[in-house]
Amino acid sequence: MPTVIIAGAGLVGALNACFFAQRGWNVQVYEYRKDIRTMAHVQGRSINLALSQRGKSALEAVGLREYIVNQGVPMYARLVHNKDGKTYSRQPYGRPGEHIVSINRRHLNEVMITQAEKCPNVKFFFEHKVKNVDVDKGSITVQSLAKVSRIPRPGQSPPRTEDTTEQTIQGDLIIACDGAYSAVRRSLMTFPRFNYSQEYIEHGYVELNILPKSDEFALEENVFHLWPRGHFTLIALANKDKTFTVTIFAPFAEFEKHMSNTTDVLNFFRENFPDAYELLGRDHIADTFSRVKPQPLISLKCAPHHFGDNILLMGDAAHAMVPFYGQGMNCGFEDCLVYSDILNQYPMDIPRSLKEYSRVRVKDAHTINDLAMYNYEELRDLVNHTSYKLRKKFDMWLNRIMPETWIPLYSMVTFSRIPYSKVVENRRWQDKIVSRFNKIICTSTVVGVIAVASFAAYRQKIPPFNKF
Amino acid sequence: MPTVIIAGAGLVGALNACFFAQRGWNVQVYEYRKDIRTMAHVQGRSINLALSQRGKSALEAVGLREYIVNQGVPMYARLVHNKDGKTYSRQPYGRPGEHIVSINRRHLNEVMITQAEKCPNVKFFFEHKVKNVDVDKGSITVQSLAKVSRIPRPGQSPPRTEDTTEQTIQGDLIIACDGAYSAVRRSLMTFPRFNYSQEYIEHGYVELNILPKSDEFALEENVFHLWPRGHFTLIALANKDKTFTVTIFAPFAEFEKHMSNTTDVLNFFRENFPDAYELLGRDHIADTFSRVKPQPLISLKCAPHHFGDNILLMGDAAHAMVPFYGQGMNCGFEDCLVYSDILNQYPMDIPRSLKEYSRVRVKDAHTINDLAMYNYEELRDLVNHTSYKLRKKFDMWLNRIMPETWIPLYSMVTFSRIPYSKVVENRRWQDKIVSRFNKIICTSTVVGVIAVASFAAYRQKIPPFNKF
Repeated sequence: MPTVIIAGAGLVGALNACFFAQRGWNVQVYEYRKDIRTMAHVQGRSINLALSQRGKSALEAVGLREYIVNQGVPMYARLVHNKDGKTYSRQPYGRPGEHIVSINRRHLNEVMITQAEKCPNVKFFFEHKVKNVDVDKGSITVQSLAKVSRIPRPGQSPPRTEDTTEQTIQGDLIIACDGAYSAVRRSLMTFPRFNYSQEYIEHGYVELNILPKSDEFALEENVFHLWPRGHFTLIALANKDKTFTVTIFAPFAEFEKHMSNTTDVLNFFRENFPDAYELLGRDHIADTFSRVKPQPLISLKCAPHHFGDNILLMGDAAHAMVPFYGQGMNCGFEDCLVYSDILNQYPMDIPRSLKEYSRVRVKDAHTINDLAMYNYEELRDLVNHTSYKLRKKFDMWLNRIMPETWIPLYSMVTFSRIPYSKVVENRRWQDKIVSRFNKIICTSTVVGVIAVASFAAYRQKIPPFNKF
Repeated sequence: MPTVIIAGAGLVGALNACFFAQRGWNVQVYEYRKDIRTMAHVQGRSINLALSQRGKSALEAVGLREYIVNQGVPMYARLVHNKDGKTYSRQPYGRPGEHIVSINRRHLNEVMITQAEKCPNVKFFFEHKVKNVDVDKGSITVQSLAKVSRIPRPGQSPPRTEDTTEQTIQGDLIIACDGAYSAVRRSLMTFPRFNYSQEYIEHGYVELNILPKSDEFALEENVFHLWPRGHFTLIALANKDKTFTVTIFAPFAEFEKHMSNTTDVLNFFRENFPDAYELLGRDHIADTFSRVKPQPLISLKCAPHHFGDNILLMGDAAHAMVPFYGQGMNCGFEDCLVYSDILNQYPMDIPRSLKEYSRVRVKDAHTINDLAMYNYEELRDLVNHTSYKLRKKFDMWLNRIMPETWIPLYSMVTFSRIPYSKVVENRRWQDKIVSRFNKIICTSTVVGVIAVASFAAYRQKIPPFNKF
């Protein structure tokens, strides 16, 4: 059986381990951090994730869908909170029953690692730093960071407290799932004709929490809460433990201007998010902002996703995106599924499967990246525009009449596995029709008005157009 | 006096050394390769460069302009070679006398290193590989590659043939001029909010040579020779030694399809560039293509150009561009001049000078990058379009009437030091006027035709518009 080396035991790395475990390959996963299951507190990434169709399909393929979905909180609509702190508007995500699931990142990660580890052919190496890869040799260099303290024998050197030996490991396939700051990708920056871009948006984010109220959810739990305020916005997602994870997104300049000291930040929250302010509590807001700096948001594209005959980038290592479409994890999970399907097609030909993966997947990754960027406009602003709401209603109405033919953009992204690039093609086609439809309505209105006016004029026996 | 550490002794690194030598700073330059002055053959980059106003101004500031310009071959116009191999069209670059200068890269580099080394405060360390920088410490790590073979003393280990010691060096300012594949920049990829993109265009290039004919230039020497053929193109620049450096640019797919074996490549040249084919000679073409693979072309942008309080990227390390505007070196040289002017403004405040440099220079670097990309369209195709030629003539004509106000785009880029971003603003303003001018001409024509027709109709005593 071939050997696959996976860099990173985060969400995509762990899921990939499950996929290759099923396939019976020898699987070695190298992860910089300690085993997440043994850690008291996990630093870093956001706690909340919204699992949707693509992610579910991938989990289904490794037999984890039902278990994971049951651990989450379903969300059926957006609930937009107005500035008065009292009124809302509700925007269903899809048809009745269609929903996304709020999931805890850490729990999901733990479940997948445990699942993969059940197979004897899978081995996780925690506290192993991946340094770089060698395309020609098809090898990866890792450095063990595990602290080994042995009692020295007489005449031996004092106990080693850190074993920082580097090893070079060869595999039939190396998959880098080591995230947005991928060391593997960085070591490939000079690979011939490798296109790459990383862009930080002007916005950063800070995470806060709303605790349960009398042991119950302090807000309606089965919705995605949204406080859109133009160039900044607040969101809240429910957790299984009845807390909410609340995130504020704003330009760094805004954080500096309005949230750099306790008085300012409290005023800012009280004024812009009065209901959330009450639930978060002034102490929690003040405390969080005194401890935590706004975190940056990166958008990252590259092409191809494979290198030589045996190296592949997946997940954030290939396409970290801004979080505004809730597709980062879903796209990463779908990566694993897409590659698994391709491997089924070319089971004996890894080089061919890699080429095919890049051919198919790069354009989809670029597309969802762009959609995620665009969706920020929607989240922070458009959701309150009449034209946006009208279009949303129009899409929903047509979808009810032609459920197979007319699927709203959000639904195609979230509730289907239509390739992202195809999603955008479909949307362009829909836009064309909507624009024609608008023209027809306008023309009909004008023709109608003229007809009525002419008829009225005729009855009054005056020349029809002179009146205007 | 402060110490500046320069990574790279290529064109921009060597010129920077001259600038800081003049300033009296302590200058240390670390260069991966051997001293170019001691090498028989220099591998890598293209031989030919076109020096224009920005580059000249920078050389002027270090007292090298006259000497360098005299070592080059002036070019006053483009000479477009048609496919019949016999006819040409000539497009002057600017006003009479305005010209660019074809310069030999190696010679230029050597002259600048020697010039900088004249100052006792300047030290070049060749065969020193720059590994990375540390922003917080303001230090750079270099590895000496110099081969040292000593006779071992009794009891000593055998002779070291390679001294690969790493040193960490601190300076008040670190300038990375280590090119498109900059190791310094690579070590800064995870610097917070560093935006970066690298894109390889679909075209590659191969360099060839035309030898002198009876000891004279085989083609007219004071022009830039151009064989535009749609999606591929050939250019030739004269060298002081009466040879021409000839470069073919084509998509990699085209190279594979039409130039992958001797028969094909000879047919391709004979058919598309019959006159160049004769001068290059079939043996030289066949030999070159059997030895050399097409080289890729990268376009690279980043922002900011400075990091922390003491690190700066310049030249290709900050903005490698495709070569189609002949501005790569000129922009890099102007970088040195721009920074020198800013340092004069803030002589005691390096951190401030760096921020100011990024503020001023990033947008200009982005602009010339885009212009260079756009100019490929022009070189390979547009030069043969009537509308393009008309606009060029119109620009020249207006420039003659209003030499200070109406400067053609190419002239602003090539013969002025107007910041690149301002160049594009000016061009937009010109385009607006041209478009209005077109409208006026169209309207006048229509009005004229109607007036004439009406007059004719009046004379014939029939209602004027019924005729149409």
